[in-house]
Amino acid sequence: MTDVTMIEAAAARLSGHARVTPLLNALLLDAAAGRRIFVKAESLQLTGSFKFRGGWSAISAMDPATRARGVMAYSSGNHAQGVALAAQAHGIPAVILMPSDAPQVKIANTRAYGAEVILYDRATEDRDTLGARLTADRGLTLIKPFDDPQVIAGQGTIGLELAEQAAALGITRAPVLTCCGGGGLSAGIALALQARAPGLTVRPVEPAGFDDMARSLASGQAERNAQTTGSICDAILTPQPGALTLPVLQRLAGPGLTATDDQALRAMALAFTHLRLVLEPGGAIALAAAIHHADLPDTVICTASGGNVDAAIFRMALDRHAP
Amino acid sequence: MTDVTMIEAAAARLSGHARVTPLLNALLLDAAAGRRIFVKAESLQLTGSFKFRGGWSAISAMDPATRARGVMAYSSGNHAQGVALAAQAHGIPAVILMPSDAPQVKIANTRAYGAEVILYDRATEDRDTLGARLTADRGLTLIKPFDDPQVIAGQGTIGLELAEQAAALGITRAPVLTCCGGGGLSAGIALALQARAPGLTVRPVEPAGFDDMARSLASGQAERNAQTTGSICDAILTPQPGALTLPVLQRLAGPGLTATDDQALRAMALAFTHLRLVLEPGGAIALAAAIHHADLPDTVICTASGGNVDAAIFRMALDRHAP
Repeated sequence: MTDVTMIEAAAARLSGHARVTPLLNALLLDAAAGRRIFVKAESLQLTGSFKFRGGWSAISAMDPATRARGVMAYSSGNHAQGVALAAQAHGIPAVILMPSDAPQVKIANTRAYGAEVILYDRATEDRDTLGARLTADRGLTLIKPFDDPQVIAGQGTIGLELAEQAAALGITRAPVLTCCGGGGLSAGIALALQARAPGLTVRPVEPAGFDDMARSLASGQAERNAQTTGSICDAILTPQPGALTLPVLQRLAGPGLTATDDQALRAMALAFTHLRLVLEPGGAIALAAAIHHADLPDTVICTASGGNVDAAIFRMALDRHAP
Repeated sequence: MTDVTMIEAAAARLSGHARVTPLLNALLLDAAAGRRIFVKAESLQLTGSFKFRGGWSAISAMDPATRARGVMAYSSGNHAQGVALAAQAHGIPAVILMPSDAPQVKIANTRAYGAEVILYDRATEDRDTLGARLTADRGLTLIKPFDDPQVIAGQGTIGLELAEQAAALGITRAPVLTCCGGGGLSAGIALALQARAPGLTVRPVEPAGFDDMARSLASGQAERNAQTTGSICDAILTPQPGALTLPVLQRLAGPGLTATDDQALRAMALAFTHLRLVLEPGGAIALAAAIHHADLPDTVICTASGGNVDAAIFRMALDRHAP
């Protein structure tokens, strides 16, 4: 399983290929929230989300002969784009299995990063069967979105950067609110911070009604969401915590937090106005909790994990919440 | 007048107080433009524009006794906010003279940075007379928006960063397209690049119909704009080039370029989609030229000089140009 040595090795492989993203703040955001908030802007990462780190980490860690045959991912979103660009930069094939009703722009972007996109019909075809046949036929390696030690190590490189950036600001004790779907980002950051900045504690944030991780941390066992649709935070609606990520977060993180879709939209509008960042709803959920939760300390760090948002959703944030 | 030694001294004073902004790119933006474009994201600077650098540079260079009496600026926009925050951080008073019909949000933001905002009626009061009385009565020092050697030196620190960032990417020859109003940003960057990266040449970009700098560079004398309203690029609509900036740009920069308001809106939409940056129209004008001008080389650097934009204008960019 992932440890800080693996995370540091991932950081060495990512160096010069992924961006070191800035930790941003704004006095007028602090005034709106009533506390100091520092935002790790992974929306500025290549492909517009932290997922590029995990994709690059996994692909760069493969043995060259296996890697040369190519990789596969299931995703209609940020993981697809992260894996596609990381594969293209390694000069290897990437096959991305996407539902045929995925947004055209996401299909087009994934293709633009050089991936072969294979569409399947969610109603009539089984994704896992299709994927298993493809990996067998072509010798592809599946890159899972979160339950993979090297993917977690890649996301953990954010934690190494955060430890340095927080220390430079003199911050030694603070909660680190992380946008949480399967828990890869949260677990990676928690492992890095345990080793490099033990006063910084991960608190995963999920959309209200999709808080499988928060409930799992509370109950001590893996809890499921009743549904995986019905929130605009599409990037982080997973059915249940990862088998690898939950034990890490049980040991090192919590309790979980939630924020509503409308709070995420308000966080997007405040990030637009005060940080001049474009965030997607799932990428703004930690900032939403940092702004709206009453019971947090004076200084909070949060991840802004992605910025791939349709104009229609962004307009909704501005319409409701921008002055 | 400003030289690279002054710019380096400004950089030393700014260190730890202003952000070193990233030089960003995106493969899908390059694909849309048909060339490689690197974007210096000053929209991520404190107060949302490069103006904080000039304000900090000027205030930090003052003798302490004069500084303690406070500073004044005329501005309804980015310069106001940059000077206000720099003054607040120095613990000195700032008085900002703003027209009473300035947007409420800009007045509120300038006040939130601790400045005393004095409103005047554009129809019945003379700004310069009012300003002269205030500086005399209170011993305030006027910080000009561009025609001040230390302000130009502050903006020039962007050129020092660009020289390093371009070298790290292996870029030794390229045009550097700069958003141009009075020319402080363009002149500062040109002076820094002449000394540190002479293969990088500044080309100022202005809104079509407001190209006083381009025409001045072509004719060899200061040309005026017929008007200073009528473009959405409000941050860079100045009547004529600065007395200090024009000679620098005559010697080191050009020819000038223009882009239309609609091209600026398209650049904002592309920055939203591919860079996840919020840009204001005047801050996107150089990117607009980088995207739309046919006669530019394969690799272009441009400044994204600010991101303080009303939601209504941002919506217009998305409505017209986002997929």
